[in-house]
Amino acid sequence: MESTLYFGGLLIKSIAFLGPKGTFTHEVASFLGENLFSYCSIPSVLKAVENGECDLGVVPIENSIEGPVGITLDLLVHSKLYIQGEIVLPISHNLITKRDCEIHDIKYVYSHPQALAQCQSYLENRGLKPLFTLSTAAAVKLVVERNDSAAIGTLKAAQLYDLNILDKNIQDTDNNKTRFIILSKDFGLKSENNKTSILFETYQDSPGELYHILGFFANNNINLTKIESRPSKEGLGKYIFFLDFEGHKNDKVVKDILDKTRTKTSIMKVLGSYPSL
Amino acid sequence: MESTLYFGGLLIKSIAFLGPKGTFTHEVASFLGENLFSYCSIPSVLKAVENGECDLGVVPIENSIEGPVGITLDLLVHSKLYIQGEIVLPISHNLITKRDCEIHDIKYVYSHPQALAQCQSYLENRGLKPLFTLSTAAAVKLVVERNDSAAIGTLKAAQLYDLNILDKNIQDTDNNKTRFIILSKDFGLKSENNKTSILFETYQDSPGELYHILGFFANNNINLTKIESRPSKEGLGKYIFFLDFEGHKNDKVVKDILDKTRTKTSIMKVLGSYPSL
Repeated sequence: MESTLYFGGLLIKSIAFLGPKGTFTHEVASFLGENLFSYCSIPSVLKAVENGECDLGVVPIENSIEGPVGITLDLLVHSKLYIQGEIVLPISHNLITKRDCEIHDIKYVYSHPQALAQCQSYLENRGLKPLFTLSTAAAVKLVVERNDSAAIGTLKAAQLYDLNILDKNIQDTDNNKTRFIILSKDFGLKSENNKTSILFETYQDSPGELYHILGFFANNNINLTKIESRPSKEGLGKYIFFLDFEGHKNDKVVKDILDKTRTKTSIMKVLGSYPSL
Repeated sequence: MESTLYFGGLLIKSIAFLGPKGTFTHEVASFLGENLFSYCSIPSVLKAVENGECDLGVVPIENSIEGPVGITLDLLVHSKLYIQGEIVLPISHNLITKRDCEIHDIKYVYSHPQALAQCQSYLENRGLKPLFTLSTAAAVKLVVERNDSAAIGTLKAAQLYDLNILDKNIQDTDNNKTRFIILSKDFGLKSENNKTSILFETYQDSPGELYHILGFFANNNINLTKIESRPSKEGLGKYIFFLDFEGHKNDKVVKDILDKTRTKTSIMKVLGSYPSL
């Protein structure tokens, strides 16, 4: 049965997401449709959309505690896809074990490094040893056969493997949210409230130039909602900046700012305009 | 035998570093003295200096490919230690195995997630499966008993366990450098060429305020050598900014800029002034 959901005016046929099943990205992709395809890495999600295997791709881009997802930002530098939308998901971590396990049986806790980092105090206070896996879902799958280990993962993953939730909301802070982006080959149409994402690399004297570029936005009262630096991989102290701001690429004031920004940068790329949350 | 090395005018008695032995941080700590103490995490290195167990602490702060070491930046927000100096180390990764292993025996490659990420193309091209460990040194220790696995690690670690270097310089790019900081309880004395590191959090409208603060530096011709954003953990779009710039905290022009910056920020902290490389 083919899904007939629409997103940004497009009929959604198929959605690639960062798997395996039971991850937070799976949860987000489920909001968009039913025709979901799991891919094992962020680069392979982007590739699936680029080569037409899927119509949309869903990947995480930043977490309010851990910061940016470096590989997503790095891939956007060279990708031909556009950001069509964003979804922010509150992250709640659960301690998951086999049905017959109790807390005093547990010595090891498996999960993705970022999930372990977000539950560090909880683990330290209970003397539990963290061990890395490639995803939270992989961790949950692994504890199906362990009596001395728990996994940190989603409710969805616990259901998938018929496991027990030993403890809920074990993250260190309650401000834990992850922002996911929805990627497609098409540039987003203008809606009522828009947001635009760009990246750029300044010439030599990077931070001084950044000041001038931020001035283009400040002087036009365009509010920035995000600024992030990533190493440009050309040496320490050289950065690519990622900016999100209010407005659509086709708004006159935005067009003017982008034209001025181009004169101050060696690389400037519009990553997408999409409805702001 | 007690070491009698001096660093920044201080007699160095003992140095805490992020272990285990055989890591890049161990290599950097060795440049500073012989009285070295290995700690199992970045927070425990800082604690060892704070409570007087050691005189100096050495931890990584950023890598030219992977970006900032998030936990180091996050700890600096609340730590009472000062940056006394920095060391930049070119990172060279090696494929390490048991003495009798050859490349066609290898299916799995163990290492720290950052080291694996830095050798991603090398591993993908050879169909080798990456597996996470807590440090490059832990990976090297692990392959002592494996016939189907290699580790990515330092030459020092290979020597330590009498293992074979199957391949050298396997990292994807040659611009791979890590910056380490040296922490102490004392603020750095003024030397010929100085650098100062600060962090701050702006009021509500964060990116607009950043523009004004960068202006204080630009208008005084103070060159910024680094700008980095970290989530403030109070929600998406809220940041703490880390700036490095030329000059010492006690220079008149720097003092004036810092006073102005204080008026625009809810938190402002001088992390240290130290000799610039």
